[in-house]
Amino acid sequence: MRIYAATEADRDAIWEIFHEVIAAEETYPISPDISRNDALAYWFQSGAHAYVAAQRLGFGGKQEKPIVGAYTVHPNQAGGGAHVANAAFIVAKSARGRGIGRALGEHCLNEARRLGFRAMQFNFVISTNEAAVKLWQDLGMKIVGTLPGAFRHPEKGYVDVHVMFRSLL
Amino acid sequence: MRIYAATEADRDAIWEIFHEVIAAEETYPISPDISRNDALAYWFQSGAHAYVAAQRLGFGGKQEKPIVGAYTVHPNQAGGGAHVANAAFIVAKSARGRGIGRALGEHCLNEARRLGFRAMQFNFVISTNEAAVKLWQDLGMKIVGTLPGAFRHPEKGYVDVHVMFRSLL
Repeated sequence: MRIYAATEADRDAIWEIFHEVIAAEETYPISPDISRNDALAYWFQSGAHAYVAAQRLGFGGKQEKPIVGAYTVHPNQAGGGAHVANAAFIVAKSARGRGIGRALGEHCLNEARRLGFRAMQFNFVISTNEAAVKLWQDLGMKIVGTLPGAFRHPEKGYVDVHVMFRSLL
Repeated sequence: MRIYAATEADRDAIWEIFHEVIAAEETYPISPDISRNDALAYWFQSGAHAYVAAQRLGFGGKQEKPIVGAYTVHPNQAGGGAHVANAAFIVAKSARGRGIGRALGEHCLNEARRLGFRAMQFNFVISTNEAAVKLWQDLGMKIVGTLPGAFRHPEKGYVDVHVMFRSLL
């Protein structure tokens, strides 16, 4: 797998995976009805650095959808809060369980540090997304606060949400 | 003092107070260079309900600037997070220490409840803004998490930031 800075040519693949993730309504507080334009405007917002993960092509293999995941990292706030990064991650359903999220997470923390951010903050890690909570903890993110019932899960009802944070210094 | 829904005619007054607050760089993670358009787009964002506080005119008094404060309340997130409100408050420097922030805060919590929000969340209460932290605690907001060094104060350097939350049920 290779992770590289997203180009114009990757926008369709990002939108496709983003839409698949949002449609499940389980991991992001974003309406499943979000338009392609709004989604890509969020992903490539001012100050954002966007990356994609592409799987290596096998010998002689024909690979129509090489992009399996993506992340975007950007300032979490403006002005006096711009030294703290925020990031979002998506992995194609068909490619899960292969460590792509972890590889993107590690790449993202290094990239955020390289860009000069002093810390990383995730504002909305839904507690029922246990794989994500565990992965981020493995990568040094700490739960600094829990928002009671802040997410309405389509099956589980109102569930807690974690704010996670780590220094990059 | 009277609190009422902001109209088109109040935009100049809101921008004036907003700009004064942001220029101090002490209480919001927003660049002091923000444009009037961007500031008002934030204040009147999609789903926002904006209010202003106007002081009553005295008998025969001439009052050129009756608007002394304002707030905006809106969903903190979209999709499955849209049942939690977020709000922002501004009070003109010349009108501070008169309970205007408290009156706006109380009005806002009632209004959020009336609008059907289940909770209120403040994402970025800067710890050095002690009057605000105390006021929000008086109004039932609890510190649910603290972000270490998440705000760069112009004089105090990197200071902590609180995430505050309360149920409205």
